[in-house]
Amino acid sequence: MTLKARLALELPAINKALDKALHNLPTAVLPVARHILEAGGKRLRPLLLVLMARLLGRDDARIRDLAVTLEMLHAATLLHDDVLDNALTRRGKPAAQTLFSVPTVILAGDALLAEANALVAAWGDKRLSLCFSQATSHTAAGEILEIAAQRRVDVTASAYTEMIRGKTAWLIRAACEMGALAAEADAAQVEAAAGYGENIGMAFQLVDDALDFAAQSVTGKPTGGDVREGKLTLPLRLYRDNLQEAERTAFDAAFCAGRLSAEEAAVIAERIRDMGYDVRAREEANVYLVAARQALEILPPRPERQLLNLMADYVRDRQK
Amino acid sequence: MTLKARLALELPAINKALDKALHNLPTAVLPVARHILEAGGKRLRPLLLVLMARLLGRDDARIRDLAVTLEMLHAATLLHDDVLDNALTRRGKPAAQTLFSVPTVILAGDALLAEANALVAAWGDKRLSLCFSQATSHTAAGEILEIAAQRRVDVTASAYTEMIRGKTAWLIRAACEMGALAAEADAAQVEAAAGYGENIGMAFQLVDDALDFAAQSVTGKPTGGDVREGKLTLPLRLYRDNLQEAERTAFDAAFCAGRLSAEEAAVIAERIRDMGYDVRAREEANVYLVAARQALEILPPRPERQLLNLMADYVRDRQK
Repeated sequence: MTLKARLALELPAINKALDKALHNLPTAVLPVARHILEAGGKRLRPLLLVLMARLLGRDDARIRDLAVTLEMLHAATLLHDDVLDNALTRRGKPAAQTLFSVPTVILAGDALLAEANALVAAWGDKRLSLCFSQATSHTAAGEILEIAAQRRVDVTASAYTEMIRGKTAWLIRAACEMGALAAEADAAQVEAAAGYGENIGMAFQLVDDALDFAAQSVTGKPTGGDVREGKLTLPLRLYRDNLQEAERTAFDAAFCAGRLSAEEAAVIAERIRDMGYDVRAREEANVYLVAARQALEILPPRPERQLLNLMADYVRDRQK
Repeated sequence: MTLKARLALELPAINKALDKALHNLPTAVLPVARHILEAGGKRLRPLLLVLMARLLGRDDARIRDLAVTLEMLHAATLLHDDVLDNALTRRGKPAAQTLFSVPTVILAGDALLAEANALVAAWGDKRLSLCFSQATSHTAAGEILEIAAQRRVDVTASAYTEMIRGKTAWLIRAACEMGALAAEADAAQVEAAAGYGENIGMAFQLVDDALDFAAQSVTGKPTGGDVREGKLTLPLRLYRDNLQEAERTAFDAAFCAGRLSAEEAAVIAERIRDMGYDVRAREEANVYLVAARQALEILPPRPERQLLNLMADYVRDRQK
């Protein structure tokens, strides 16, 4: 059975728990919450929590009630992000604020986050509440750094690394850490679970950044969106740093002014692929994946450990 | 000593704790957080938590670290509210989104909320985490109801009551309940503290709604702002329901279309004062204040109980 088929077996129970968790939301935001949560998504964070808990010896229906709080938090950040970016689409469907009013979408995000926090608090383990709220805080901080870095070329590579650690890796780290905590794992195991999650999260974002430059014929999405949105991701940074001075000056001016067209972005994406800068980002991702696999070594050699290793392969290899 | 002078003695220590709590916020949102938190405000919620805890036997520096999480949550809702309302001013100063970008303001709200949740979780009492996150959830739900009710005349009085219970009273209830919980009060005392807070909160909002129709010469604020914002508060509902049919039809059309001018709002406010509809809202507030005072009866007869009674007087009597 492929990883995808194996994970698909988990999804009905997770989606059922998610549906139950939405029952307490204010009626007025329920359509917004359903819109973002039923638009699809891989349920990566709940899956990681469930698998990590099972690997460490806990497997019951209740664990899924905890797991879906991460999808709610993730959905809340997507709602706010789409408002901030004036996004038109999300997961191939119309973005929420094109269907609902901006206030409703902002408050739906707030309500989802509040309800997720309440569900974690109701679980009654202060370590889980702390982990969850710190992940929320780091995610917000990462998004703030991302906005501050937009349309700028003077942000260091290490600042970029810390930004993606915040906006993406912390929540995936929290998913794995919370799974281990809920399973009452010992401190070394909790640390290993968190380390696996953080490294998988970093790799996930780096591959995402590489995929932004893949040909539209492969991904089905417009290529070079990050160029136009003024995001100096690793592949784009390599491209920019290797330009001749005159070309670089022109690029900087257009990039910082947000003046690059879809056609120019596609040309840059093609050059990035020709030069292999997207592959370089994948290589960087692989460094994190090696660390993620190492973290798994001290965890029990159960089938779930193999699944978590396969998820590292999936993150490395995904083509869209 | 007046209540105000007495409460002023508490403020330096609360403001110091608040300043400390902001240290962990992402640097990029710190100016936004400082802007909203240093613009003033009565620190009503932290004060209530501190006084309730002291009344029930707990008085240490740490209690203020807990108390300020409520001000952070309150500030987060104000930031999002001002974005939703396109407000120009807040507490007599420019609203945050006139000074900072909308994305920064939204994310500053998210970061304040996340950090407040993390601080409560770090306290390590799951009852506090639950109380805090439920208050957040109810506040968001109340705001959603408020937006859904805007520029409508078909919202029932009881729906309006539930809306203000959510948007205002829950958080004030949580402040009092958390103070009692942190003081390790018994269940009946916690219930009484929560009841006091909820009733004070309801009264506070009803008086606020009455004050919206006070003459600008008294409050220093434009009169009838709620008319123009399409909020059918209790005084305005009484005004509208007592119009002759033709007048009411005209009012409904203008109100629902958001077409009422500042001059028309001032005329309506004057009629509301002449008819005593604002006084009727204060009378309704007083019903809640009676319940608030009753709740205090079972709490210990310490000086703080007298202060909490004086705060009920203050809510009843305030003229701006």
